Amino acid sequence: MDDKEIEKILNLYSKGELPASEAIRKIKNLSYEDVGFARIDHARRKRQGFPEVIFGHGKTSIQIATIFQRLAEFAPNVMVTRTNQGAYEEIIKIFPEAEWHEQARLIRLFRDKTNLGVGEICVVTAGTGDIPVAEEAALTAETMGNQVRRIWDAGVAGIHRILSERETLKGARVVIVVAGMEGALPSVVGGLVSVPVIAVPTSVGYGASFQGLAALLGMLNSCASNVAVVNIDNGFGAGFVASLINRRWECSEV
Amino acid sequence: MDDKEIEKILNLYSKGELPASEAIRKIKNLSYEDVGFARIDHARRKRQGFPEVIFGHGKTSIQIATIFQRLAEFAPNVMVTRTNQGAYEEIIKIFPEAEWHEQARLIRLFRDKTNLGVGEICVVTAGTGDIPVAEEAALTAETMGNQVRRIWDAGVAGIHRILSERETLKGARVVIVVAGMEGALPSVVGGLVSVPVIAVPTSVGYGASFQGLAALLGMLNSCASNVAVVNIDNGFGAGFVASLINRRWECSEV
Amino acid sequence: MDDKEIEKILNLYSKGELPASEAIRKIKNLSYEDVGFARIDHARRKRQGFPEVIFGHGKTSIQIATIFQRLAEFAPNVMVTRTNQGAYEEIIKIFPEAEWHEQARLIRLFRDKTNLGVGEICVVTAGTGDIPVAEEAALTAETMGNQVRRIWDAGVAGIHRILSERETLKGARVVIVVAGMEGALPSVVGGLVSVPVIAVPTSVGYGASFQGLAALLGMLNSCASNVAVVNIDNGFGAGFVASLINRRWECSEV
Amino acid sequence: MDDKEIEKILNLYSKGELPASEAIRKIKNLSYEDVGFARIDHARRKRQGFPEVIFGHGKTSIQIATIFQRLAEFAPNVMVTRTNQGAYEEIIKIFPEAEWHEQARLIRLFRDKTNLGVGEICVVTAGTGDIPVAEEAALTAETMGNQVRRIWDAGVAGIHRILSERETLKGARVVIVVAGMEGALPSVVGGLVSVPVIAVPTSVGYGASFQGLAALLGMLNSCASNVAVVNIDNGFGAGFVASLINRRWECSEV
Amino acid sequence: MDDKEIEKILNLYSKGELPASEAIRKIKNLSYEDVGFARIDHARRKRQGFPEVIFGHGKTSIQIATIFQRLAEFAPNVMVTRTNQGAYEEIIKIFPEAEWHEQARLIRLFRDKTNLGVGEICVVTAGTGDIPVAEEAALTAETMGNQVRRIWDAGVAGIHRILSERETLKGARVVIVVAGMEGALPSVVGGLVSVPVIAVPTSVGYGASFQGLAALLGMLNSCASNVAVVNIDNGFGAGFVASLINRRWECSEV
Amino acid sequence: MDDKEIEKILNLYSKGELPASEAIRKIKNLSYEDVGFARIDHARRKRQGFPEVIFGHGKTSIQIATIFQRLAEFAPNVMVTRTNQGAYEEIIKIFPEAEWHEQARLIRLFRDKTNLGVGEICVVTAGTGDIPVAEEAALTAETMGNQVRRIWDAGVAGIHRILSERETLKGARVVIVVAGMEGALPSVVGGLVSVPVIAVPTSVGYGASFQGLAALLGMLNSCASNVAVVNIDNGFGAGFVASLINRRWECSEV
Amino acid sequence: MDDKEIEKILNLYSKGELPASEAIRKIKNLSYEDVGFARIDHARRKRQGFPEVIFGHGKTSIQIATIFQRLAEFAPNVMVTRTNQGAYEEIIKIFPEAEWHEQARLIRLFRDKTNLGVGEICVVTAGTGDIPVAEEAALTAETMGNQVRRIWDAGVAGIHRILSERETLKGARVVIVVAGMEGALPSVVGGLVSVPVIAVPTSVGYGASFQGLAALLGMLNSCASNVAVVNIDNGFGAGFVASLINRRWECSEV
Amino acid sequence: MDDKEIEKILNLYSKGELPASEAIRKIKNLSYEDVGFARIDHARRKRQGFPEVIFGHGKTSIQIATIFQRLAEFAPNVMVTRTNQGAYEEIIKIFPEAEWHEQARLIRLFRDKTNLGVGEICVVTAGTGDIPVAEEAALTAETMGNQVRRIWDAGVAGIHRILSERETLKGARVVIVVAGMEGALPSVVGGLVSVPVIAVPTSVGYGASFQGLAALLGMLNSCASNVAVVNIDNGFGAGFVASLINRRWECSEV
Repeated sequence: MDDKEIEKILNLYSKGELPASEAIRKIKNLSYEDVGFARIDHARRKRQGFPEVIFGHGKTSIQIATIFQRLAEFAPNVMVTRTNQGAYEEIIKIFPEAEWHEQARLIRLFRDKTNLGVGEICVVTAGTGDIPVAEEAALTAETMGNQVRRIWDAGVAGIHRILSERETLKGARVVIVVAGMEGALPSVVGGLVSVPVIAVPTSVGYGASFQGLAALLGMLNSCASNVAVVNIDNGFGAGFVASLINRRWECSEV
Repeated sequence: MDDKEIEKILNLYSKGELPASEAIRKIKNLSYEDVGFARIDHARRKRQGFPEVIFGHGKTSIQIATIFQRLAEFAPNVMVTRTNQGAYEEIIKIFPEAEWHEQARLIRLFRDKTNLGVGEICVVTAGTGDIPVAEEAALTAETMGNQVRRIWDAGVAGIHRILSERETLKGARVVIVVAGMEGALPSVVGGLVSVPVIAVPTSVGYGASFQGLAALLGMLNSCASNVAVVNIDNGFGAGFVASLINRRWECSEV
Repeated sequence: MDDKEIEKILNLYSKGELPASEAIRKIKNLSYEDVGFARIDHARRKRQGFPEVIFGHGKTSIQIATIFQRLAEFAPNVMVTRTNQGAYEEIIKIFPEAEWHEQARLIRLFRDKTNLGVGEICVVTAGTGDIPVAEEAALTAETMGNQVRRIWDAGVAGIHRILSERETLKGARVVIVVAGMEGALPSVVGGLVSVPVIAVPTSVGYGASFQGLAALLGMLNSCASNVAVVNIDNGFGAGFVASLINRRWECSEV
Repeated sequence: MDDKEIEKILNLYSKGELPASEAIRKIKNLSYEDVGFARIDHARRKRQGFPEVIFGHGKTSIQIATIFQRLAEFAPNVMVTRTNQGAYEEIIKIFPEAEWHEQARLIRLFRDKTNLGVGEICVVTAGTGDIPVAEEAALTAETMGNQVRRIWDAGVAGIHRILSERETLKGARVVIVVAGMEGALPSVVGGLVSVPVIAVPTSVGYGASFQGLAALLGMLNSCASNVAVVNIDNGFGAGFVASLINRRWECSEV
Repeated sequence: MDDKEIEKILNLYSKGELPASEAIRKIKNLSYEDVGFARIDHARRKRQGFPEVIFGHGKTSIQIATIFQRLAEFAPNVMVTRTNQGAYEEIIKIFPEAEWHEQARLIRLFRDKTNLGVGEICVVTAGTGDIPVAEEAALTAETMGNQVRRIWDAGVAGIHRILSERETLKGARVVIVVAGMEGALPSVVGGLVSVPVIAVPTSVGYGASFQGLAALLGMLNSCASNVAVVNIDNGFGAGFVASLINRRWECSEV
Repeated sequence: MDDKEIEKILNLYSKGELPASEAIRKIKNLSYEDVGFARIDHARRKRQGFPEVIFGHGKTSIQIATIFQRLAEFAPNVMVTRTNQGAYEEIIKIFPEAEWHEQARLIRLFRDKTNLGVGEICVVTAGTGDIPVAEEAALTAETMGNQVRRIWDAGVAGIHRILSERETLKGARVVIVVAGMEGALPSVVGGLVSVPVIAVPTSVGYGASFQGLAALLGMLNSCASNVAVVNIDNGFGAGFVASLINRRWECSEV
Repeated sequence: MDDKEIEKILNLYSKGELPASEAIRKIKNLSYEDVGFARIDHARRKRQGFPEVIFGHGKTSIQIATIFQRLAEFAPNVMVTRTNQGAYEEIIKIFPEAEWHEQARLIRLFRDKTNLGVGEICVVTAGTGDIPVAEEAALTAETMGNQVRRIWDAGVAGIHRILSERETLKGARVVIVVAGMEGALPSVVGGLVSVPVIAVPTSVGYGASFQGLAALLGMLNSCASNVAVVNIDNGFGAGFVASLINRRWECSEV
Repeated sequence: MDDKEIEKILNLYSKGELPASEAIRKIKNLSYEDVGFARIDHARRKRQGFPEVIFGHGKTSIQIATIFQRLAEFAPNVMVTRTNQGAYEEIIKIFPEAEWHEQARLIRLFRDKTNLGVGEICVVTAGTGDIPVAEEAALTAETMGNQVRRIWDAGVAGIHRILSERETLKGARVVIVVAGMEGALPSVVGGLVSVPVIAVPTSVGYGASFQGLAALLGMLNSCASNVAVVNIDNGFGAGFVASLINRRWECSEV
C-alpha cells in the first residue's frame, strides 16, 4: 500500500463519495487476490521490484498453472521454481512461449528482456554438481533484467581455474558463488573482487557435509568481508538479491 | 596484481633492464608487507574497495597500533573492530583525531568523508540489545563513504513500530536488519522494500536461541526473497557488504 | 481414578462384600482396557476432557478399526490422525458416517457437535504448504466442540495479508499459527492479539530449515510473550491445547 | 491502532480540520514513545492485555529505571525480569513500594491486585533447582491478576509426590510445569488434568542435558496432548501465557 | 585366550615338541575362524557368556546362513537380528527348527532353554509403536536363558497404566523400558523399583524427536539413579545386558 | 507405598477406627517429608534400595546440612555429591565422622559397611583426567555395600595396559569404565569380560570432544553388546546402577 | 603452472615472437581443458602426483566416459569412484581392459603398475560392513602405485583379532583404519604402530551413530597421537593420502 | 611387546630358569611403570617412534615434573603440551636446559637434534590468531627430528599471499595447514602440492564458527584429495603425524 492509493481513497471518502466502512474495506483489499488456497500478492512487484515467484514444490500442476495465469496478466515475466515437466505441460497450453529449464527445474515466461542492470552478474560454481543451483540463480537474474556470465567448475583445489577468470570477474557488478562440500570458493572470489559476493551453499557432498551444513558454515565464516549468504541450494534467492544489487537506482524506484 | 603492474615489469624485463629471476621476485612482492606476525595486505584497497580492516580480538595494543600506522600511511580511513580502550590509547598517541566508539568497541580514523553512495543505508534493530552490533555496521558504512540512517528497537511483536518507518526505509538503497531471538524482522522488512536486505543475526537471547543460532536459521529461511545473511554478530561484515551495494558503480571501479 | 470410584469400592470392602485382594484388583482395573497390543485408556475422557485419539502411524488398518470401535462405544466423537484411506475404508464398514479428510490425513466420527467454547479459535498459516498441518489443527478443534476460523497464506513477507485480518483475529479466544521456514508469523500475530497463541512449526522449507528446526527455534525464541509452542507438524496437539483453552470452565469440570 | 482511533482522525480530516499530511503522521504516532535507546510500547496493554515488561538483561540500572517510570505512569502494575538489586535500588528511590524478589531476580510494582482469572494457576517444579524459574512464572501470573498455587519438588522419580497433589491440580484452570534434566514431569501432569499445561524446560542438569536441550526436546515430544512449551528458563513467558489462558473472557476484551 | 590354553602350548613348546615359530602362530589362531568376509569369534562365548550374534543388516542371506551354520556347530542357541524372511528361508533348509519372529525381525535357534537367571526380566513399552524393539529385547533375553514378562503400552500420560503393574515389576531382577517420543517412562519405572533399569530409546515419534534423539537425551538425564541407557532402537543390546545382570553368578563364571 | 502399609490402613478403616477422608489422607502422606524447599523421599530406600542421595549443586551449605540430618535419622549411610568443603564443614558440626573426598567432591557418612554384593565392582579409567568421576563411582559403590577395585589410566592407545589387568577384571561381577575423548575403552573392556559394563563418558578432552559428546556417542554405539551408558560425568549414577547389579538378590528384596 | 613453462613463454615474448596479449592468454591456458560442463585439470598430475579422479555421483554415464577418455590420453591409470555398472559399460566400449569393482563401486584403468612406495599400505576394517569403503581405499592405493594388505573384521570388541595381526601391521609404512559405530579401532591400531594412521569413519551403524558422526568424533578425539582423519565413507581420500605418505620421496618430485 | 622380548622370556622358561607363573607375569610387566595416578608408557617410544608426551591440562606442576623426570631418564627429548609457566619453573629446577614456549604453552627438553626427516615440514597459518596452535605443531615437529618452515598469515581472502609461497611449499615432504573461521586454506594448499596436507582447524572465529566446528567441517569436506584432518586446536597431533610422515623409513624401524 503506498500513499498515493490511500490518498485517492481518502479523497473519495472526504467528498462523501465513499462511506467510512467502504473506505476501510478498500484499503484492506488493495493488495492481494485470494484464490482460496493462496493469496496472490499483486503488490509485490510494487514493493519488491519483481512479481511474486511461484515456489512449485508441493503444489499441483493445476494450482501452479492457475497462479501462473493470474500473475501473467499483470507482469510480463513470470517464473516457477522447484517444479517439474508436468506443470510445464499445463502451462504451455496457455502460454506456448513459456520455457522449461530441465537442469534448474524452472519454468519461465520471459517477455520483457529490458536490461535494468548497472553491470553484469557473474555466476560461478565450484564443481559440476553445483550447476543446477547456479542455473536457477542465472535464470532468475536474467529474467529480472540482467546480463549474466557463467563460470562453471572453478573450485579452489585447482586455484588456477578461478584465477584465470579474474578479468571476467572484474566486469561484474555482483558475483554469485555456488559451492558445496567445504564451500571455500566465495572466500577466494571475495578476495579477488571489489563488489558484493552472494554465496550459495549447496547440498553437494557426502558424510560430514551434512546436506550442505559444512558449506553453509564455511561461507558464514568467510574471511572475506564482502560475502553474504543465502540458504542451502537457494539459487533463486541469490539471483533475486543479486538482481536488486545490480539494478540501476532509477529502475529500483518503480 | 593487475595487468598494468605486470606489463610494466614485463617491459623492463624484455628491454633487458630486469633479469628473469628479478622479474619473478618483483611479481611476487607486489602485494603485501610482511611485519612478522602479519602480512599487511596493501593491495586490498585496490581489490576490495577498502583497505584491510584490523580485527582487534586476540591482538595486543602494540600490534594493533603498529598495523594501524602502516595502513594509515596508504589510506585516509582506517578501522579497528572488536577492540578496547587500551588499543585506542595507544593509537591516539600518533593519531589524536582517531575516534573511540564504546558501544561498538570500534576505533576509526575518519579523514576522508566523501560520499560514494547511490542512496542511503538504513540500519534497523529489533531490540535495544542489538544496538552494539548495529552500531558496528553503521560506523563501518559511514567510514566507507555512506549516509546512514538508524532505526532502533522496531521488533515484530509491535509491528506498528517498523510499519511507521516505511517512508524512511523507502529512501534506502540497501537495508541492514540486526536482530536476535527469533530473527524475524528481516522477513518483514524484506517484504516492505524493493532493495537488498542484509540480515545480521545477533547472539541476543537465551535458552533455545543457542547464542544466535535460532536467529541465524530464521534469517537463512526467510520467506522474503531479497534477504542475504552474514555471520552472527557480524555488524562489520554487514556494513561492508552494504557499502559495496550502495557504492556508485563509477566509484567501484577504483 | 477419582475418589468416588474408590469410595464405592471401599464401601463394598468395609461391608465385607469384597475381600481385600479383590478390592485391590478392582482399583487397579478401573482405568483401561487391554486389547493385547494396546491399553485403551477409557479414563482419559474423564481426565483430559476428550477420549484418547488414535495415532494412526505404524498401526494396521485392522488395529485402527478395532480401537476405533471400542472408543466409539463410549464417546460420540472419535478421531484418527496420521492415517490413510485404507484405514478409513475399514472404518466406514461399521461407521458409514465417518469422514475422511484427505489433506489432513485424518478420520473422524463427529456425532456430537455441541459448542463448548468461550469464543472462536482462529487457525492461521504462513503459506499454502502449511495447510495440511493447519487442517489437522482445525479439524481437531472442531471435533472437540469449537467454532473455527481459517486464515490461509498470510506470511510475514507480505505483512499486509495478516494485518488485513486483524478484525477476525480479534474475535478469537485463542489463535493457532502454523508456519514453516523461518517461523516468524507467531511473533507478529502474538503482537496483534491479547489472547494466547499456539505456534506450530512445520517441516515446510529446505536446506537450513532442517525439517522444521529453524521454525521451531524461531517460535521458542519469539519476542511476543503470549506464544507457546508444540512439536513440529503437530497440528493435532495445537488443536487439542487450543480447545482446552477455549473451553468454558463449567464444561472443563467434567 | 484500532478502528475507533483511526475513525476519529478520519472524521477530523473529512471535516477539513486536519490536512492530509497531518492525518498520516497522526496515525503513525498513535502507538509508541521513543526514548532514544528504546521505543516504549504503550499500546501493548491494549493489544496484549498487559503493559510491556522490561527485560532487564543488558540494560543499565538507569535505563531500567527510566523505562519503569514511564510505564508506571500508564499502568498500575509494572515488572522487570532478569535484573539485579542495583536496578531495584534505583527504582525504590521513586517507587518505595516496589518489591525485589531475589530468587526470581524480578522487580515488580504491584498496585492493582484485582483477580481477573477464571480459576487458579498451579505452578509445579520437578526439583528444587527449578524453583527460581518457577517463581518468575508464579510472580508474573500473580502480577497479571491470578491466584497462584505452588507445588515444589515433585519430580517423576518419586511419582507419589505428584500423585498426592492431584486434588490441588484439579482446581487449576491451567498448570505450569517447570522441569530440567529429562523434563518428564509435564507428560505425567498432562495426563492427570483436563486443562492446558504450559511446560517450561530449565537448564538444570549437566552433561547430556546440554543446558536444557534435553528437557526442551522431551517436552516438545510429550505423549500428553495438552502440553505446550516455552523457551528454556522462560518462566516469565509461561506465567504470561497462563495468565491469558486463565483470564475471564470479559476481562480479555479490554 | 585364557591361561589354560596358553599353558598347554607353552608346555608343548618347553618339551621341544613345538618350535618357537609354531608356538607363536598357535597362540594367534586360538580365537577366531576366518571365513574371508568375516572373522567368526568362537571365543566370545567364553569371554562374554553368549556366542557371537549375527547382525543381519547389510549381509546377504547366504552370508548369514554360512555364519549361522558355523556358530550352530559350537553353540546350542544362535540368533540373527535386523534380518528378513529371505535369510530365514535359507536357514530353515538346514535348521528346520529355527524360528522367524516377524515383528522383531529376528531369527533364532533355541535348543537350550535352561533358566540361568536369578529372577525374571520385565520388558515394558511406553506405546504400541515401541513393541518391535521391545520384542527384540525380550527374545534376546529368553534365548540367553531368562524368564521374561512383557508389559506393553504403559506410557506416562496415563500414569495409572504403569502404576497398576507395580506388583509385576517387583518380581523382576532387572527391568527393560522401551520408549520413544519424550522417553519419560524409565524415570517413572526407575523410581518404582529397587533393581537396575535398562532404558532403550526408540525412533518412534516425529518432528523434534529427531529419530530418537529426544528420547535418548531424556533417558540419559533421568532423575532416577538406577537407569542406564543403550543405543536408539537397540533392543538386542538391552536384552543382552539385562541377561548378564540377571544371570546367576555361578553361571557367569563359565 | 507397599501393600502392607495400605492393608493396615484399610483394616483400621474397615473397623471404623478411621474415617474415609482420613484413610485417603494417610495413604497420601506415607511417603515423603516436606521441608519447604524440598520433599525428602524417605520411601526411596524402600523402593530403590538406597536412601535419597543429595545432589549438592545449587544448594546452600545450610540446605545440604538440613537434608543430610533428616536422612541420617533414617539411614546409616548418607551421601552428598557435587558439593564443596563449605557444606562439609557444616555437616561435621553434627556428624564428626563424616568424610570429605576432595577429588570426587563428595561427602559421605559411612556407618554401615556390610558387604551386600555378589562379587567385586571394578572401576577402570582411560586417563588420569577421568579419575575424579571414577572416584565418585567408586565411593558410591562402596557406600552402597560393595567391594571396589580401581584400575586407573588404562586407555586403549596403550592396549597392553588394560590387557595386563584381565585377571582383575575377571573377578568383577560388573565393571564401570570411565573415559573421555573418544570413549573407546568400554568396547575393549566389554569384549574382555562376561559381565555387564557400565560406561561413563567424561567431559575430558577438547575441540571436537564437545564436552563429552564424542565419548557419549562412542559408548552408545559400542560394538560390544554388554555395554550400557549413563550421563556424561555421572560417576554417581554408574556406581548406583553397578551396586544394584552386584547386589545379592536376597538383599535386593528389602 | 611451474616456472619452466612460464620462462619459456617469457623467452618467446622477450624475443618479440609473442605479443603481450598472447603471452598473458597462454599463461592462463596452460592448466585445464574446458569441456563445457567441467574443466579437466590436466595439471593436477603435475601438482598432486596423480591425475584428477572422476567423482561419479551425479554425472551421467556419457559425461563420465567423456572425461575418462580425455584423462586416459594423458595418464596411464584412471579411476572413477561412486559410480555404477552403467558407466562401466560405456567405458569398456573404448577401454576393454577397464575393471569394474562392484563392492567399491569403482571403475579403474590400471595400465601402469610400477611400485612407487617405500613400504606396504595396510587397510584394516572393524567390521564386515566397512569393507566397501575399505576396498575403495585399497583400490585407490593400488592404482596409485602401492602394495596393499587387507585385514577385514578386526574390531575392538574382540581385541585379539587385531592383536594377532601385529606382525602384518609392522610391515606397513602407513595404516588405513576403516570403522563405523564407535570408531574405536584407529586408537588401538595407532597405539600399536610407529607410522601414521589414516582413519576413515563409516556410516555403518544405527541410532546414535547419526550416519557416521559418532565414529567421526571418536576418531578426531583419538588418544593415539598418530591418527589423522578423513570424511565419513571417504575411502578414496584415505587411499590417496596414504599413497602420498608411502611414496618414495624421489617419486614425489615429479 | 615385540617378539624378541617374548622369545627371551620363553627361552628362560624353556630352560627351566623361569617358572610358568613368573613367565606370565614378566610378559605382562614389560611395558609400563605405575606411579599411582598414571601408568607411564615406556614402551611407547618403541611402538610409536617417540616417547609419551605429557598433556599438561588438568595435572599439577608437581605431577608434571614427576612424569617429566621419569621420561627424561629414558628419552633425550621430552615435551609437555597445554601447560603453564608454573610447571616450567618446577622442571627447570632439575633440567635447567628445558625451554618454555609461551605462545604455544609448551615445555620441551631438546637434547637430541638429529634430523630424522626425508625433507622439510612446512607449517602454514591462515591468520595471526592461528599462530599459537601452529607453533605447537612446529615445535612438536622440530623436537621429533624435523626441519620446519613457518608461513604465517596467508589466508585465502588474499590468495596472492599463499601463491607467493609456492616455491617454499614445493620443498616440503608434508604440509601442516592451520586455519580457523571457514578453514578454506587446506583445500587451496592441497591443490598446490603433491604431498600430504595435515589440516588443523582452530577455534579462532566467532558466531557460526561454533568454536572451530565450521573449520573442522570445511576441512573434512575438502575438495583436495590429499588432506587429512586432526582435532580442533590439536597442533601437537598435526606435528606428530607430520613427523611420522616425514621420517625416513629406516629411522621409523626403530
